[in-house]
Amino acid sequence: MHEQQRQQTLDLLKSRQLDAALFSSMESIKWLTGFTPPLNTGLNPFAAGDALLWVEHGHFSLIVLDSQAEGASAFGTLAGCELITYAGYTIESPIRTHENLKAVLAGKIGVSGAARVGIEPDHLLHFVREAFPANATPVSMTGWLVPLRMIKTDEELAKLRHNFALVDEGQAVARRHCTAGTREIDVWAAVHSAISARAGAPLYLGNDCVVGYRSPNNIGGLPAANPIREDTALIVDLSTAWAGYWSDSCGTYYPQGPTPRQEKLHTFVQGALEYAISLVRPGAVSGEIDRRVRQFMADAGYPVYPHHTGHGVGVSSHEEPRIVPYNDIALQAGMVLMLEPGIYFPGETSVRLEDAVLVTSDGAEVLTHFSKGF
Amino acid sequence: MHEQQRQQTLDLLKSRQLDAALFSSMESIKWLTGFTPPLNTGLNPFAAGDALLWVEHGHFSLIVLDSQAEGASAFGTLAGCELITYAGYTIESPIRTHENLKAVLAGKIGVSGAARVGIEPDHLLHFVREAFPANATPVSMTGWLVPLRMIKTDEELAKLRHNFALVDEGQAVARRHCTAGTREIDVWAAVHSAISARAGAPLYLGNDCVVGYRSPNNIGGLPAANPIREDTALIVDLSTAWAGYWSDSCGTYYPQGPTPRQEKLHTFVQGALEYAISLVRPGAVSGEIDRRVRQFMADAGYPVYPHHTGHGVGVSSHEEPRIVPYNDIALQAGMVLMLEPGIYFPGETSVRLEDAVLVTSDGAEVLTHFSKGF
Repeated sequence: MHEQQRQQTLDLLKSRQLDAALFSSMESIKWLTGFTPPLNTGLNPFAAGDALLWVEHGHFSLIVLDSQAEGASAFGTLAGCELITYAGYTIESPIRTHENLKAVLAGKIGVSGAARVGIEPDHLLHFVREAFPANATPVSMTGWLVPLRMIKTDEELAKLRHNFALVDEGQAVARRHCTAGTREIDVWAAVHSAISARAGAPLYLGNDCVVGYRSPNNIGGLPAANPIREDTALIVDLSTAWAGYWSDSCGTYYPQGPTPRQEKLHTFVQGALEYAISLVRPGAVSGEIDRRVRQFMADAGYPVYPHHTGHGVGVSSHEEPRIVPYNDIALQAGMVLMLEPGIYFPGETSVRLEDAVLVTSDGAEVLTHFSKGF
Repeated sequence: MHEQQRQQTLDLLKSRQLDAALFSSMESIKWLTGFTPPLNTGLNPFAAGDALLWVEHGHFSLIVLDSQAEGASAFGTLAGCELITYAGYTIESPIRTHENLKAVLAGKIGVSGAARVGIEPDHLLHFVREAFPANATPVSMTGWLVPLRMIKTDEELAKLRHNFALVDEGQAVARRHCTAGTREIDVWAAVHSAISARAGAPLYLGNDCVVGYRSPNNIGGLPAANPIREDTALIVDLSTAWAGYWSDSCGTYYPQGPTPRQEKLHTFVQGALEYAISLVRPGAVSGEIDRRVRQFMADAGYPVYPHHTGHGVGVSSHEEPRIVPYNDIALQAGMVLMLEPGIYFPGETSVRLEDAVLVTSDGAEVLTHFSKGF
């Protein structure tokens, strides 16, 4: 799997006259191989760092902690990649993870005769440099994959569709559990239980679950013990990571139906979201979509949200194309965007609605399917 | 808070003739400052990397992503630390997190006149080296804090006690939800909901939830969709991170009571755990405790577990003193240990029981309080 991504990358490396490359950012590695480490590995006391991916002579070698090798083959990863592990946990001696990784790097990369070697310096561990071929010139590859990652393959779209269905389920559960007398964290716990049970595996859950009367920030944040009152609007913005790919969506719920003012705001934001979706087609410019949706809010006299109008999603939860003022990226078929207008009156009430769309040959297909009515 | 840790470290740096030091491992930074980033920041697309802590002239400067500054002051962190942030998310321009961090480092560290500067090279990002004082000699500090971290302060013990109470609650919920016809993931989801609701915040949950009939590994692993049958033993090993400190505990449950064989195994492991606890006192050697508990299992004719007998816990989920064969660390009052004997018959049944203990002046105080009977 992920052959297309690797072929594109080999072509890219060739066009830039690189003899070899070392990828070290998790996003690059997931996109190139499908390798998906469990979340929270940053705190795994047995890992020397994130995975590394060495490319030379058209051959890909994924270097991971031994206990992550099992995870490396989940989701069909590693057809087409050599797997190299370094020893972590043992009871026979002190754990020497870093030394073990250094030895693996010395044996694999240090002996390379490559002259020009790509690196991702922003993610590269210090000691990797020590293992570099002595005569090689490191060349920064930061950002090279970003435009490639924007266009999703069919394989990636299948993962994203599966994942959006999980947050659709989460939104339905949030709607049912948003009742007066419960708390933000109670809604969250119910959502988290439901999506884990549906996936049959524990999943990470982000992003926001906040009552509209929070102040000064009623836009987002992790849930706390704030109670849901009869007239509370509850923003529930859900992301989960499945097979290394991220989903996203946002609903707003009212335990006993909206107040007249909340109903007016909510209905307007539904219209703004529909308007945003109507602007999506190949050739549309990210910054222009952003400008138009903000203007739509301002024309109606509402405060314009301070965040992005939307963003791409894939191996990371927020990537290009960003739907923001400065951005001149033109949309292309195969991109997957989140769109998320909102209105926020801190200390009073707030509403945000968010859908995912796939850019098609002549417009947009909505990938999220949950009720946004009352 | 964490003044004791910082004073110990200043003394250490002075004794090693360092003029300054840059800490970059998350464990070191949590232990020195209490700063606790949310879990999963490794996948945060707006962070250039983990936090960094610069020490010079007895002054501590914590360098974090701007959006993590709020988290930095949770749990009373940062009394006694300067907070320096670098810009991450913006809609006004492309996100230049790495450049922003580099600029902060150049302005703070690059202008230092320090001659000998400590680093943690195993965790140091590549580009940090570029920002280093031109005339400084980097000195590796890897492992320096490990022996200091073993002895817990009263402040740390208070966090650990709070956290062990959360997994005590999780164990009680696991016992109630371990019923025939449910699945591993269902028990897990109920536990996760309960501890998040009790904490009033979403918490990470590890480690294992596995039916005894798993094969070849019925020791551990994340929950899946495996069903719990009438005669299934279910190992539930729970860790959560609260205020940056980790808890741990393990129970084994039987939906309709144990079979006679399971009862015999379970009762024996209870005895092994009590025996292990009885060996804990200042001066006892880690490797010797390990040897004796293994001998206890072997003497009764049971297969000896392939994992550690136990391990320390604190700012990481597994740290010194490790209760393993090679280890000659002598226990001291103030250490907190996990002890976790088990018996595993892959494909059939398994049992593990785990308590936390504090080494006291003359023995051990058990810190976990959940029922291990039937």
